[in-house]
Amino acid sequence: MSLPRKVKLVEVGPRDGLQNEPNAITVEQRVKLINMLGDAGFTTIEAGSFVSPKWVPRMAGSDEVLKNVDHSRGISYCVLTPNQRGYEDAVAASANEIAVFTAASETFSKKNTNCSIAEGLARFEPICADAKTRGIRIRGYISCVIDCPYEGEVLPSQVENVARALFDFGCDEISLGDTIGTGTPQRVEALLSCVGTSVPIEKLAVHFHDTYGQAVGNILRSLQLGVSIVDSAVAGLGGCPYAKGATGNVASEDVLYLLDGLGIASGISMEKLLDASEYISGVVGREPASNAARALLSKRH
Amino acid sequence: MSLPRKVKLVEVGPRDGLQNEPNAITVEQRVKLINMLGDAGFTTIEAGSFVSPKWVPRMAGSDEVLKNVDHSRGISYCVLTPNQRGYEDAVAASANEIAVFTAASETFSKKNTNCSIAEGLARFEPICADAKTRGIRIRGYISCVIDCPYEGEVLPSQVENVARALFDFGCDEISLGDTIGTGTPQRVEALLSCVGTSVPIEKLAVHFHDTYGQAVGNILRSLQLGVSIVDSAVAGLGGCPYAKGATGNVASEDVLYLLDGLGIASGISMEKLLDASEYISGVVGREPASNAARALLSKRH
Repeated sequence: MSLPRKVKLVEVGPRDGLQNEPNAITVEQRVKLINMLGDAGFTTIEAGSFVSPKWVPRMAGSDEVLKNVDHSRGISYCVLTPNQRGYEDAVAASANEIAVFTAASETFSKKNTNCSIAEGLARFEPICADAKTRGIRIRGYISCVIDCPYEGEVLPSQVENVARALFDFGCDEISLGDTIGTGTPQRVEALLSCVGTSVPIEKLAVHFHDTYGQAVGNILRSLQLGVSIVDSAVAGLGGCPYAKGATGNVASEDVLYLLDGLGIASGISMEKLLDASEYISGVVGREPASNAARALLSKRH
Repeated sequence: MSLPRKVKLVEVGPRDGLQNEPNAITVEQRVKLINMLGDAGFTTIEAGSFVSPKWVPRMAGSDEVLKNVDHSRGISYCVLTPNQRGYEDAVAASANEIAVFTAASETFSKKNTNCSIAEGLARFEPICADAKTRGIRIRGYISCVIDCPYEGEVLPSQVENVARALFDFGCDEISLGDTIGTGTPQRVEALLSCVGTSVPIEKLAVHFHDTYGQAVGNILRSLQLGVSIVDSAVAGLGGCPYAKGATGNVASEDVLYLLDGLGIASGISMEKLLDASEYISGVVGREPASNAARALLSKRH
């Protein structure tokens, strides 16, 4: 079985995971979680979002989060920048990595970002250009790369068009999001084959939700096809308020269990990841949405 | 991606799934579940166990179950026969498929069946010989094909030795059970490569538990390697009382979602499987341990 020797896990729990939590999480708790994830070995952690607190109250204080996390280890703390204003705030907060985002489906783009795909891309082009001059890394997110909750099936060629635009803007990596979790390995293969004709495979990240229990299978297939960047969230945090039935991101613990079992280096310590999982599960008041975490933590107690 | 065109799903929920339920399930409820699974299209359903009710009280009345399920559709109702006495009872109850079982680990064999692997095999040899003369199908189960909760790592060659013996006894298929769910795709590949040298791949079934969230990935890898028989349990029922932290079988709904997505024919109707899942979840009083079932059922209500 052909597999990458190393994989970068991008931890999205502190942003994508927590943004829809029903109860407030303090800046201190978010900082603590991020630092525990840094201790575990993640080199890229999504730390916040420079979006109006009116729209995403849980991400208020992202500048404070960014100021207080541990900067001694060279970790990339990625922050979402939905527009020019957010981008300027991120620059002012000394962000070293930003994320721009759009969708492969027009309806989802309009519902999620209140603009068409083309308008979103036009908004991000100058942001990316400026970020490049400042040496700020850029992630490009594309939602609904398999299916859209409003439009149904999304063709790989639709994703490819958006991915090529983001790549041309200078995105350092492009994360393909199966927002509603309906993907299965065959469709993931069709997607990666198509997008891979416009963007080098080493620039592609995969971002799966475990809504239908398929995330680990889809990640395995992605690894077999050469993908070496995988998004995941500690304790399986997350969900999407705009997509009915969309449960959380695939759990970092389940993905790490897979990678460890495959002998793929990630630099992440399972024990320290479990510490973070246990911590944030206590904060949000529920068990980790991760089979591996529940099984491994049950042995601790 | 090379995949089988057809897969036989073996539904183990009514036996492997229900045998450890804390509360009693009536014969009527078991019959109803089995018939709903037959309606969904399963051609092999584990229906009971001819073991002393002293040891497995939940399987009491398996003869009544077998008598009352729908026999008009040619479904194989597999029943566990742990010894000569159980086998004779199964024959008296007109069972058309039996299952014999041992482990690839000596300690697990002793704890689970109170005899060594060799003693267990010696017990099953005449049973298999007699079953062959009567035209009764035989499944051979091997537990702990990846790791043992007592001994740790189990070598593929240990599994191969046991599988070869069962195959030589005339077992029609041999189910490889990752009892504690620690397998990952690379080890599954090593296992199948090794066992496949002694038993034809089309005679091998895989039986995964989702304890660490790896079951769907392991099934995908097994399919890629030519396996075409997969064990699963509706609503992810089950667990093993002898293996700490062993959660249920992989859910039939998650596996069917995978197969449907891969375009692999199974003959199973997801809608009717969901009916069975909803029914038995009501009986046992908890949500299905299946992401696919929860997501799909949430759209029904």
